[in-house]
Amino acid sequence: MIEVEVKARAPEGMADRIASLGGELVAVENHLDLYFNSPLRDFRRSDEALRIRIKEEGARLTYKGPKLDSATKSRLELTVRIDDARQMEQILCHLGFALSATVRKRRSKYSYHGLTLALDEVEGLGSFLEVEAQAEEDIDEPRRRVLKVLGELGLDESIRSSYLELLEEKRQLACIKREQI
Amino acid sequence: MIEVEVKARAPEGMADRIASLGGELVAVENHLDLYFNSPLRDFRRSDEALRIRIKEEGARLTYKGPKLDSATKSRLELTVRIDDARQMEQILCHLGFALSATVRKRRSKYSYHGLTLALDEVEGLGSFLEVEAQAEEDIDEPRRRVLKVLGELGLDESIRSSYLELLEEKRQLACIKREQI
Repeated sequence: MIEVEVKARAPEGMADRIASLGGELVAVENHLDLYFNSPLRDFRRSDEALRIRIKEEGARLTYKGPKLDSATKSRLELTVRIDDARQMEQILCHLGFALSATVRKRRSKYSYHGLTLALDEVEGLGSFLEVEAQAEEDIDEPRRRVLKVLGELGLDESIRSSYLELLEEKRQLACIKREQI
Repeated sequence: MIEVEVKARAPEGMADRIASLGGELVAVENHLDLYFNSPLRDFRRSDEALRIRIKEEGARLTYKGPKLDSATKSRLELTVRIDDARQMEQILCHLGFALSATVRKRRSKYSYHGLTLALDEVEGLGSFLEVEAQAEEDIDEPRRRVLKVLGELGLDESIRSSYLELLEEKRQLACIKREQI
């Protein structure tokens, strides 16, 4: 399954804007995301991700492949539900994978014209909106749809960095600022 | 969790013998076991195992650490239930793990004096009995119990090789025989 996705910073009042356009709130979830790096290759360089996501309803293991185009965040996504996040974390540790970062966020999920809108409050980063579609092979049509919806919501800047990368950038920036003092 | 386990070849009539001693049949399961090898180190040498087990009731991912003593097959065992074996296989493939072997068997599971007896009909290998206990840390007492039960069942030879290793030995032996013709 390919996840076709665009992301943008969400200005204040985004939830109202989605509602006024007819988006339907389907879930509010708290995510604790544990990211792992591979002993074989640095996933930050290879643009891959391995994540355990822990939600109230349960946990999942997800692998994300490198991004497939330059305009969106579309990429291969493979997911399994798991019944025990702690055991999964230990299995990954024994296989040589190291916990590299944790991301906490509150996600409000909306259904909108057959797409999923995810309005995220990310700890340490602020508010973002992700517009998602899923595709089997051809990603051109879903890509047009997610970019169109981004425009309808008044957002044009598309961010291709993951929350993990944004948190890393923020850390690097803080170091540079400290060095300049 | 540590799995304390002994295994022996099961002679004919083993099921009757277990029943006559008061063992209670709790389940009959068909297992398809997919074993994976690591891109980091050869699990056959490091005595580790990574397995997806597919049963009628669902699938699990299991990691087994190296054996902890010389008399039994006791080892660290970490397991998570997964909802989609095919997705898990694909995730492992993208992470660099290669499918190395498949093992099919029919397992009759008995409960006996607080232990689990697994009478296995393994495709290509024949019948085996495994006596299993689970331990948190101290494995001496459960090890004594599983070895005692093995004796009560009239079995003395303890096999430390996994089904995977036994199938590999059988393949090697077949090659040697062919070379000698």
